[in-house]
Amino acid sequence: MSSAIVILSGGLDSTTALYWAKKNFNKVFAITFYYGQRHSLEVEMARIIAKKAKVEEHILFEVDISKFGGSALTDKNLEVPETQSIEEIKERGIPITYVPFRNGIFLSIAAAYAETKNTTNLVGGWNAVDYSGYPDCRPEFLAAMEEALNKGTKLGSEGKSWKIHAPLINLTKGEIIKLGLSLGADYSYSISCYRGTEVPCGKCDSCVLRAKGWMEVGKEDHLIERLKREGKV
Amino acid sequence: MSSAIVILSGGLDSTTALYWAKKNFNKVFAITFYYGQRHSLEVEMARIIAKKAKVEEHILFEVDISKFGGSALTDKNLEVPETQSIEEIKERGIPITYVPFRNGIFLSIAAAYAETKNTTNLVGGWNAVDYSGYPDCRPEFLAAMEEALNKGTKLGSEGKSWKIHAPLINLTKGEIIKLGLSLGADYSYSISCYRGTEVPCGKCDSCVLRAKGWMEVGKEDHLIERLKREGKV
Repeated sequence: MSSAIVILSGGLDSTTALYWAKKNFNKVFAITFYYGQRHSLEVEMARIIAKKAKVEEHILFEVDISKFGGSALTDKNLEVPETQSIEEIKERGIPITYVPFRNGIFLSIAAAYAETKNTTNLVGGWNAVDYSGYPDCRPEFLAAMEEALNKGTKLGSEGKSWKIHAPLINLTKGEIIKLGLSLGADYSYSISCYRGTEVPCGKCDSCVLRAKGWMEVGKEDHLIERLKREGKV
Repeated sequence: MSSAIVILSGGLDSTTALYWAKKNFNKVFAITFYYGQRHSLEVEMARIIAKKAKVEEHILFEVDISKFGGSALTDKNLEVPETQSIEEIKERGIPITYVPFRNGIFLSIAAAYAETKNTTNLVGGWNAVDYSGYPDCRPEFLAAMEEALNKGTKLGSEGKSWKIHAPLINLTKGEIIKLGLSLGADYSYSISCYRGTEVPCGKCDSCVLRAKGWMEVGKEDHLIERLKREGKV
């Protein structure tokens, strides 16, 4: 019986990762972090998404890294910047929306959860193509974390190998959506906007990248379809 | 201006690490975790210890990994075992008091705190000699975590090297106490008992190891001295 823990933020990428995990493992558990993010509505959405995907268990975990500040995603005094273009996202350095070591924290906590479920499979929607340039989304980081887990856990010291599955790491946003659609993913409740509103601002990195993805696919975003149905846009 | 973050549990080892950091860095910040531990009194003690050591700032951070269970330190339904001897501690495998990936979680969160203080120095009281056999206390784990931090953080990707300082890693418990005493450490408020009581049970791994340490030093434990003064033993 294979099993895995999916780190589910409630955004488009992690929703795709969840459906990928459902196809590749018999038992899928999901964990969502409330970390003091501006866009905490995504936590509510994650609950709906996990329920629709019929996971074994969905844990909502609170780890309030916003108390350290330093990121526009957690500090309401900092402005989420508007994005000029896809090129700008790719060329500039690490943006103000970087949350210090967020994925390291999430992976560590997910690994603790995994150990109690006796699995060494972690799955997430990390992407290093159409992304905001965060260092903790890169394959070399995920490989280093695997090694830390192999050395620092009971299961690792018993000889089990940790595997951090990042099925989206080399896909464009359009390819991610295509993969998800082929797996039956429903994106109606997945929200991505850094400003944290259900109706996307359309101007932050995350909205710009998501719109580019659906454009590549040539379909209307499930989320926009739902918002139209509900008269919200 | 050198600076460092100390992970301070309020036990004997991390108190020593704190005094070591005070000697080796100009600015010392401390972080203590409330993780749903049975012995949460140590959090209160950590507050006193940090205050006495005059740190720049002391953060109390809540990350409730007890919700996953699986350890006698966080699950009150599991019994903290009595220890037969030092030899038994060294020979058996990973005990029931192991908390899944606790140090990985603590290091990840401490690193996020460090990034907002613009430092890549982390200090802790990890020890791989007189210890309970936890995998996340070993030097190979700490080295792997350094690499994960170098790859997964903004400071790391800017070329700064993370350093996880483990000044006690190869010391016996007696040597740890001697080091602390030479640095002016006050152990009156540092508590170690896995059962979490101020008056040590004397029977768990942690009490047995601590008693061995003071025996090696040939002095009475500061904690016992204080408890006697206060009429608690």
